[in-house]
Amino acid sequence: MQGQSQQQAYDRGITIFSPDGRLYQVEYAREAVKRGTASVGIRAEDGVVLAADKRARSPLMEPASIEKLHKADDHVGVASAGHVADARQLIDFARRQAQVNRLRYGEAMGIETLTKTITDHIQQYTQIGGARPFGVALIVGGIENGEPRLFETDPSGTPYEWQALSIGSDRSDLRDYLESEYEEGISTDEAVGLALDTLAQTNDEGLTPEGVGVATITVDDAQYAEVPADDLEAVLAERGLLATDDEEDADENDESAGADEE
Amino acid sequence: MQGQSQQQAYDRGITIFSPDGRLYQVEYAREAVKRGTASVGIRAEDGVVLAADKRARSPLMEPASIEKLHKADDHVGVASAGHVADARQLIDFARRQAQVNRLRYGEAMGIETLTKTITDHIQQYTQIGGARPFGVALIVGGIENGEPRLFETDPSGTPYEWQALSIGSDRSDLRDYLESEYEEGISTDEAVGLALDTLAQTNDEGLTPEGVGVATITVDDAQYAEVPADDLEAVLAERGLLATDDEEDADENDESAGADEE
Amino acid sequence: MQGQSQQQAYDRGITIFSPDGRLYQVEYAREAVKRGTASVGIRAEDGVVLAADKRARSPLMEPASIEKLHKADDHVGVASAGHVADARQLIDFARRQAQVNRLRYGEAMGIETLTKTITDHIQQYTQIGGARPFGVALIVGGIENGEPRLFETDPSGTPYEWQALSIGSDRSDLRDYLESEYEEGISTDEAVGLALDTLAQTNDEGLTPEGVGVATITVDDAQYAEVPADDLEAVLAERGLLATDDEEDADENDESAGADEE
Amino acid sequence: MQGQSQQQAYDRGITIFSPDGRLYQVEYAREAVKRGTASVGIRAEDGVVLAADKRARSPLMEPASIEKLHKADDHVGVASAGHVADARQLIDFARRQAQVNRLRYGEAMGIETLTKTITDHIQQYTQIGGARPFGVALIVGGIENGEPRLFETDPSGTPYEWQALSIGSDRSDLRDYLESEYEEGISTDEAVGLALDTLAQTNDEGLTPEGVGVATITVDDAQYAEVPADDLEAVLAERGLLATDDEEDADENDESAGADEE
Amino acid sequence: MQGQSQQQAYDRGITIFSPDGRLYQVEYAREAVKRGTASVGIRAEDGVVLAADKRARSPLMEPASIEKLHKADDHVGVASAGHVADARQLIDFARRQAQVNRLRYGEAMGIETLTKTITDHIQQYTQIGGARPFGVALIVGGIENGEPRLFETDPSGTPYEWQALSIGSDRSDLRDYLESEYEEGISTDEAVGLALDTLAQTNDEGLTPEGVGVATITVDDAQYAEVPADDLEAVLAERGLLATDDEEDADENDESAGADEE
Amino acid sequence: MQGQSQQQAYDRGITIFSPDGRLYQVEYAREAVKRGTASVGIRAEDGVVLAADKRARSPLMEPASIEKLHKADDHVGVASAGHVADARQLIDFARRQAQVNRLRYGEAMGIETLTKTITDHIQQYTQIGGARPFGVALIVGGIENGEPRLFETDPSGTPYEWQALSIGSDRSDLRDYLESEYEEGISTDEAVGLALDTLAQTNDEGLTPEGVGVATITVDDAQYAEVPADDLEAVLAERGLLATDDEEDADENDESAGADEE
Amino acid sequence: MQGQSQQQAYDRGITIFSPDGRLYQVEYAREAVKRGTASVGIRAEDGVVLAADKRARSPLMEPASIEKLHKADDHVGVASAGHVADARQLIDFARRQAQVNRLRYGEAMGIETLTKTITDHIQQYTQIGGARPFGVALIVGGIENGEPRLFETDPSGTPYEWQALSIGSDRSDLRDYLESEYEEGISTDEAVGLALDTLAQTNDEGLTPEGVGVATITVDDAQYAEVPADDLEAVLAERGLLATDDEEDADENDESAGADEE
Repeated sequence: MQGQSQQQAYDRGITIFSPDGRLYQVEYAREAVKRGTASVGIRAEDGVVLAADKRARSPLMEPASIEKLHKADDHVGVASAGHVADARQLIDFARRQAQVNRLRYGEAMGIETLTKTITDHIQQYTQIGGARPFGVALIVGGIENGEPRLFETDPSGTPYEWQALSIGSDRSDLRDYLESEYEEGISTDEAVGLALDTLAQTNDEGLTPEGVGVATITVDDAQYAEVPADDLEAVLAERGLLATDDEEDADENDESAGADEE
Repeated sequence: MQGQSQQQAYDRGITIFSPDGRLYQVEYAREAVKRGTASVGIRAEDGVVLAADKRARSPLMEPASIEKLHKADDHVGVASAGHVADARQLIDFARRQAQVNRLRYGEAMGIETLTKTITDHIQQYTQIGGARPFGVALIVGGIENGEPRLFETDPSGTPYEWQALSIGSDRSDLRDYLESEYEEGISTDEAVGLALDTLAQTNDEGLTPEGVGVATITVDDAQYAEVPADDLEAVLAERGLLATDDEEDADENDESAGADEE
Repeated sequence: MQGQSQQQAYDRGITIFSPDGRLYQVEYAREAVKRGTASVGIRAEDGVVLAADKRARSPLMEPASIEKLHKADDHVGVASAGHVADARQLIDFARRQAQVNRLRYGEAMGIETLTKTITDHIQQYTQIGGARPFGVALIVGGIENGEPRLFETDPSGTPYEWQALSIGSDRSDLRDYLESEYEEGISTDEAVGLALDTLAQTNDEGLTPEGVGVATITVDDAQYAEVPADDLEAVLAERGLLATDDEEDADENDESAGADEE
Repeated sequence: MQGQSQQQAYDRGITIFSPDGRLYQVEYAREAVKRGTASVGIRAEDGVVLAADKRARSPLMEPASIEKLHKADDHVGVASAGHVADARQLIDFARRQAQVNRLRYGEAMGIETLTKTITDHIQQYTQIGGARPFGVALIVGGIENGEPRLFETDPSGTPYEWQALSIGSDRSDLRDYLESEYEEGISTDEAVGLALDTLAQTNDEGLTPEGVGVATITVDDAQYAEVPADDLEAVLAERGLLATDDEEDADENDESAGADEE
Repeated sequence: MQGQSQQQAYDRGITIFSPDGRLYQVEYAREAVKRGTASVGIRAEDGVVLAADKRARSPLMEPASIEKLHKADDHVGVASAGHVADARQLIDFARRQAQVNRLRYGEAMGIETLTKTITDHIQQYTQIGGARPFGVALIVGGIENGEPRLFETDPSGTPYEWQALSIGSDRSDLRDYLESEYEEGISTDEAVGLALDTLAQTNDEGLTPEGVGVATITVDDAQYAEVPADDLEAVLAERGLLATDDEEDADENDESAGADEE
Repeated sequence: MQGQSQQQAYDRGITIFSPDGRLYQVEYAREAVKRGTASVGIRAEDGVVLAADKRARSPLMEPASIEKLHKADDHVGVASAGHVADARQLIDFARRQAQVNRLRYGEAMGIETLTKTITDHIQQYTQIGGARPFGVALIVGGIENGEPRLFETDPSGTPYEWQALSIGSDRSDLRDYLESEYEEGISTDEAVGLALDTLAQTNDEGLTPEGVGVATITVDDAQYAEVPADDLEAVLAERGLLATDDEEDADENDESAGADEE
Repeated sequence: MQGQSQQQAYDRGITIFSPDGRLYQVEYAREAVKRGTASVGIRAEDGVVLAADKRARSPLMEPASIEKLHKADDHVGVASAGHVADARQLIDFARRQAQVNRLRYGEAMGIETLTKTITDHIQQYTQIGGARPFGVALIVGGIENGEPRLFETDPSGTPYEWQALSIGSDRSDLRDYLESEYEEGISTDEAVGLALDTLAQTNDEGLTPEGVGVATITVDDAQYAEVPADDLEAVLAERGLLATDDEEDADENDESAGADEE
């Protein structure tokens, strides 16, 4: 990835700067994100869509236990890519923050505020010794003051706002697709279709309703809702994305370090 | 296991990321799990079955002291594979959590909630310095709201839900067998038989009632119960799995670092 | 950058002196600043101007979420260059300090005092073990006792006061330009133009209203205010700086360690 | 012991996993146990027998000060092998636990409970940084609810229950002997003889009453009692184990690191 | 500086002794002092003079923000050389000590007492782990009981009293000059001239009023006072030290680690 | 001492196990003991004798300040060998323990109990990180319940009881001598002679009253008492051990690290 | 100094034992002592004399600020050699101890007690991690119960009592001189002369009153008193030790790490 000679001594200990000003542990944590399966987020006119590739690595595994989409608060959803156990920590952190906000101020936490609370938490793990960075990226989407908002957090602790984005494996291919296909003003329903189209870009055999997860938060009710499998199947069929063979097992390299490659 | 050149400096200190985004200490902890004898978990229509290979490494050792199956609460059982002493820590942690839940809320803790409390505890040991990860995987099974549930925890701290799974040595062989033989809707009794069939896959000489442990938690009473040796003998005989020679001592390499290779 | 033989052992651990009296971790943190996009600060007769290059790395990214200009208090603005997440920490620190000052003394905090509180905070991270230095430089500008003031903080924790300066990539080219073009006594409006001229020095394709950010704090009302996109477009057009092609995407190397290379 | 190339980097720092899932510091602590003189434990029908090789390394040393057998509570004895000073710590820990149990619950602590309290304590030293593992193995024997119980603790913190076992030097030879000679249902008196026979297996010159220690806890009174030297002499003579020459000094390499090589 | 072979391993970690009894981290901190621009202190009959080279590295930098001379208390001034941010820490420490002394004892702190309080603080950073030494030297001058006093602190934490001294770059040349030109009993005004003469020794192009700083504390009022630029210009002109060309920019190597090379 | 290849990496950091189960830091601490001058302890019928070689390394040094014999309590003496400053720490610890015992229980502390309290303290320094082991061995002698008792503590923290022993330089030669000459039942007076004979074994030029120290604690009064120089001279003369030349200066290598080589 | 091959790995980290039982950091701290200028202590019949070489490294340095002789309490003086800043710490410690003693017990602290309190403090820095040893030796002299006492502390924390001694550079030459010239029963005045004679041994150009310091504490008043320069000049002249040329500047290598090479 990087020039061998350059990085030699700067990536071993606690996060420190290399001579060219890089934080290798943070960059390696980004590689952990890339090892995770893809997640996609799209901001529509009237809502936010989160979608994720969640194929199981065995037919005996419960798809529902593959944690890619998370409800952080009534009005906020999170999609993750990377180290699953790390994602759980950040999402627990986000839930606690959202609840504290409700208790303290009597109202729902803003999406941007929540995202930046998370990224500040992430940043601490890149500067203070005694811990490694978080090996996970999040897409945080929700409704704030009647407007859909969509953010990304990365392992450096930087927050970005997006109209549409993908994180995890094949990130740049999927982003290219989104950049060419996304149009401002699309509806939430159209965004669900675009999200599935995007995830299908790197799945030649098509998708199954169990192998993907889609959640929406619309401006109408500002409620996180996962799209039922039946509805997904209909959409996939309609768009010609449905896998013809139901037994498309993931390959067997299931021993990586907890990255969500299931 | 991995390419030599790649992993060189990234697996020595406290858990940090390698350039390709892996946490080697966590991956090595998984190797410790593979060094342990196999455990199997199966979710039946009306209950959950946990089974484990617990052959003693000497005829003088009490089979009952080989800790592979554990009662975590009335309605929850745990099967482990890997570093025995680590397993004991996690199970003590699980028991305390389950008791606290009963005291605080006056009801049994959900299986999923308990599993995720355990995996969050495990994750801390992979991110915060000053300790190594846990070298053990667990199968957590029990009854929640009248439904059988079956989970896995791995050394990264990721929870998965399964219909049927195996952990420990020969994991992929046993899983292949489970994938081909498991059928949804089987009864708990049938699942006991399937669990023993599975454990027998890599034991050419057959099994003995003392060399295996089986526990069930059925929907009826939601009570963890270990299957008595007499019953096990009957089942083994019926299925043609009973070892003909009672003296099948394990080999002598009893000096590995506490992995449950007994 | 430095002689190889000289620096060999002195740049790896927590910040320590090299034989020639340098603190390499601090110098590497300065390299992180250089990896960030440029920011410019200009002190005018009647106000202070902060400007920053904030081109997005994708058309789908919200330009507003690229954090280069920050309001630290009503009368203080901060422009940053370098590691974004680190900048957020320092700016949060600055905001808290400014608020505490208002609460404690009932008045706005002086720009110089605020800057030196920040640099003292930065210095601690270069001397005490257990953390790395901050990989960010700040331009702190504002109105103090009716006078415009403009300061710089660098990763060593040294405060400097300037009439006009730039931080981040192409620093010395931009400073040469400022040194030749800056004149004492210019108005805030002229300074906005000079700041944009400066940023345009290293952007051959011109600038877009979304790709730059400009903020002013004038002596009149001592209020931080960002210049609206429409106004920016007018100024850019007037000065012949407007990019002819709107689709000047940044290149794709978006995986550096959180430096504000957007 | 192990392949040189494999173990190189994984055995130096605080206890961490090697690529094949081993904890080398724990394995090396087991080597410290092997450097200690042998101890034997036998569970009889009506009691438990602990025996130990405790030859002095000089005729001027008081045999009574060679700590191989310890009374942990009225009804519990402990035999140790390995690092003497470490054994003292664990036995002090065991004594405190047993006393606390009596104070808190008004009854004697169960043997199994006591053993597992000890192994949990040992495990902490293999997972948490800042200390090395304990270099000692223990045989914990006693009477619980009128039943003799016999346990082993090893440096990994794993508890095992045995009918008969040996720890320390020549472990596998002594265990082979025990496996072939031990019979269920033997009396405590017979077990004393078997324990001495076992210790004699690797002492060609025979045993002396001062060079061995034997303790029993019988079901009758559940009292730890060391067998007097006169009785030992009689038993040794009867079994033809008595050393003909009283001056069998141990060799002079008395400078190892506190392992109980006396 | 030192023989390569000798120092190899002794200068990397926290400050420890080398085989020949040296503390390399302290010696390297002295190199950081030498990298700073020169400061001069002179004790006159009726006062103390502090002077410093404070040329800016850009015409746009405010000369006043180049911190070389500091008022520590009404009657005490400090001139520094070396790492600017470190100097700020020590001077803040000195100010707090001086204020505490006034509060506690109702009188001004003695110059010697203040200096030794500073050096004891410095020494802690050379003996206790977890921090690097201070990379700065100070000249502490003031009036104590009606007498002018002049002290030096170095990075080892040793206090020295001087009649006249210089610290920072070209130290030994400037000291030679002082040794030959200094005469006991000179007046404060003469000492101002001598201080400027000394600074001019290594500035071939002469000095500018903005490029130097001079402060005096006289016995008369025991008040720290910086000499105004106009007065400085007069003195420089009178002594033939005035630079003919006003644009003597410092060279461009402005990226060293915070040493006061401006 | 040990095979070079074996010990390479295991003796540098905090005390950890080597692959063959040794604690090198503890073994090296024993080497520090061997670098100290010899001390001898003998248990007589009616008392205990402690003796030590305490030749000064200069005629100007006060022999009384060479600390080899210490009164720990009225009824307990301690002789040391090895690192003098470490010995002082342990003896201070012993004194405090003895006093606490008197205050708490109103009686003198038993010799065995005191010794084991010391060794437990020593053991902590061999297992817990952040400190090195104690580089000293002690002979603890005294009267307990009217009986003379004599113990040794070594750097591993192991207590041993002896009839007669030596510690420090030439340990094995002196022990051989003691083993051949010691007889049970000798009187305290005879033991004083034997102790001096033993110390003379490796001093070809004989002993001086100032160059040795002898203390006794007899059963009669259980009081630690050092033998006056006159009495010592008489005994030395009587046994033909008196040095003919009074000026037997020790050689000049007085710069070792505090071992009691005086 | 030592064999290269032997010491290689044992002198880098926190103070640990080498294979031959040495503490290299302590030995290197002794080298720091040798780098300091010489101090001498002599115990006379009626008092104690402390003397020190305190030549300034520049004629502009105030001789009085060269700290070699210190008053620790009315009746106790301390002469130091080695790292000046470390000496200051120990003397502050001594002063606080002496004051606490006066407050608590209402009487002056004994010289021996004070010395041992200091050495115990020093020892902690050689055993506990996180700090380096003190690089200084002290001569502690004073009056205790009407008797002159004279002690040495070294970097290992070992206390010695002397009739006469020297510390610092040329130690063994000066000690040889003292051993040949010192006579018991000399008066304090004679001791002052002998101390100056001793210091002159390695100063071929003679001594100046400013270049030496002498302090006495006599039995009469038990008051630390420094000998005035005039008296010193008379004594020096009388003994033919007075330097003919007043300008004997020390050489210019004034950059060593704070050792008192002035």
